[in-house]
Amino acid sequence: MKKYAVIVAGGSGTRMGAASPKQFLLLRGKPVIWHTLRVFLDAFEDLEIILVLPEEYREEGRTIAASTGSAERIRITGGGATRWHSVRNGLGAIPGPVEEPSVIFVHDGVRCLVRTALIRLCYDEAVRCGSAIPVVDCPDSVRLMAAGGGLSEPVDRRRVKLVQTPQTFLSTMIRPAYGMDYQERFTDEATVVEAMGGKLHLVEGERGNIKITTPFDMILAEGVLAARPDPTRRPLP
Amino acid sequence: MKKYAVIVAGGSGTRMGAASPKQFLLLRGKPVIWHTLRVFLDAFEDLEIILVLPEEYREEGRTIAASTGSAERIRITGGGATRWHSVRNGLGAIPGPVEEPSVIFVHDGVRCLVRTALIRLCYDEAVRCGSAIPVVDCPDSVRLMAAGGGLSEPVDRRRVKLVQTPQTFLSTMIRPAYGMDYQERFTDEATVVEAMGGKLHLVEGERGNIKITTPFDMILAEGVLAARPDPTRRPLP
Repeated sequence: MKKYAVIVAGGSGTRMGAASPKQFLLLRGKPVIWHTLRVFLDAFEDLEIILVLPEEYREEGRTIAASTGSAERIRITGGGATRWHSVRNGLGAIPGPVEEPSVIFVHDGVRCLVRTALIRLCYDEAVRCGSAIPVVDCPDSVRLMAAGGGLSEPVDRRRVKLVQTPQTFLSTMIRPAYGMDYQERFTDEATVVEAMGGKLHLVEGERGNIKITTPFDMILAEGVLAARPDPTRRPLP
Repeated sequence: MKKYAVIVAGGSGTRMGAASPKQFLLLRGKPVIWHTLRVFLDAFEDLEIILVLPEEYREEGRTIAASTGSAERIRITGGGATRWHSVRNGLGAIPGPVEEPSVIFVHDGVRCLVRTALIRLCYDEAVRCGSAIPVVDCPDSVRLMAAGGGLSEPVDRRRVKLVQTPQTFLSTMIRPAYGMDYQERFTDEATVVEAMGGKLHLVEGERGNIKITTPFDMILAEGVLAARPDPTRRPLP
């Protein structure tokens, strides 16, 4: 089935304390988002990417897309005020007829350590079940803060799942869901599809598929990429 | 105030797929637990350690304690069937009169990336408030599985706190709490103290203070230690 990946990098990231948003910081000499694009391009030869960027970074996005050597498989569109708006823009930029059945991956641009194996697993499971949401167990104890703040209560961590991306869906499931009006509880694609009555199929994610949000994560990612003998990585110039 | 650290490494860890339990695997040529001991020894000169190990690893523990150069500050005791039992054994091995007021840190042996700054913060806050439980925000979306399994529901991740160690208490708070009988809901020290009516004071943990539980974590930890210009680290031989 035809495959589209909506890669969301619409943020202007402030937590990193750096001059560039985190999706443009360099890992092993290449922008974070370059690594993400590369893994998706390598996962399936017939996969096309819609890269969602802040409007003011479109030009930078084009340069990075060109540097993957597969610019013809990457379209760039502008981000929105929230993740939901960015994903909706990304879905709108998918080429070809809306009624064409396809599998749509929605992925955090800053999860650049994702591996092709997880992308392929999500594809297979989404074809089989309609959706595939990668989750991992939580190694730490967990507490839930009361709504008013201050007080907290323990939660059995065996019940807790940490949700990763690519959140993967049949187009027939995710497209109608994004026809609904925005609601504040739409914090990821799973919550949107669920609100439409879609059933979520959880799959086992990868512990290494972290979101790069702090300088500490950059150090981690450098270490992981250095240790990874990954045939999908092109040699660096 | 007098300071004791109960460092819990009572597990025989099977998740790592290695011959040794994870607390004995080598990071930069030294066992994981060596790094943990070293940070606590460096945090306060008058801090003493009770290292809780599986009975069959006491001898190995003595060798590691000697290799820190501060064996006289480290006592070794045997672990129990659960974390609660191991911590209770550790508290029982604290030297000196029970009524002596002190601050007691309880720390996961496999959180070897903890920094002296966090240990000192926990000390100050426990002296001020009776307890100090380090927590960090969760970067991922979170879902809670229903008790029966299968179904899951989203949780607002702004309410979720991931709990780290050292969980730190005034001795007058933690000692009586461990006089209660064991209950299955005692998954960490915070839940025990809370069951006794103790009030928990949450403090900001460190993103880097991860629990080493998988081979991926070992790669992360190598990268972090390599990147860390930490004056508390002794040069390796």
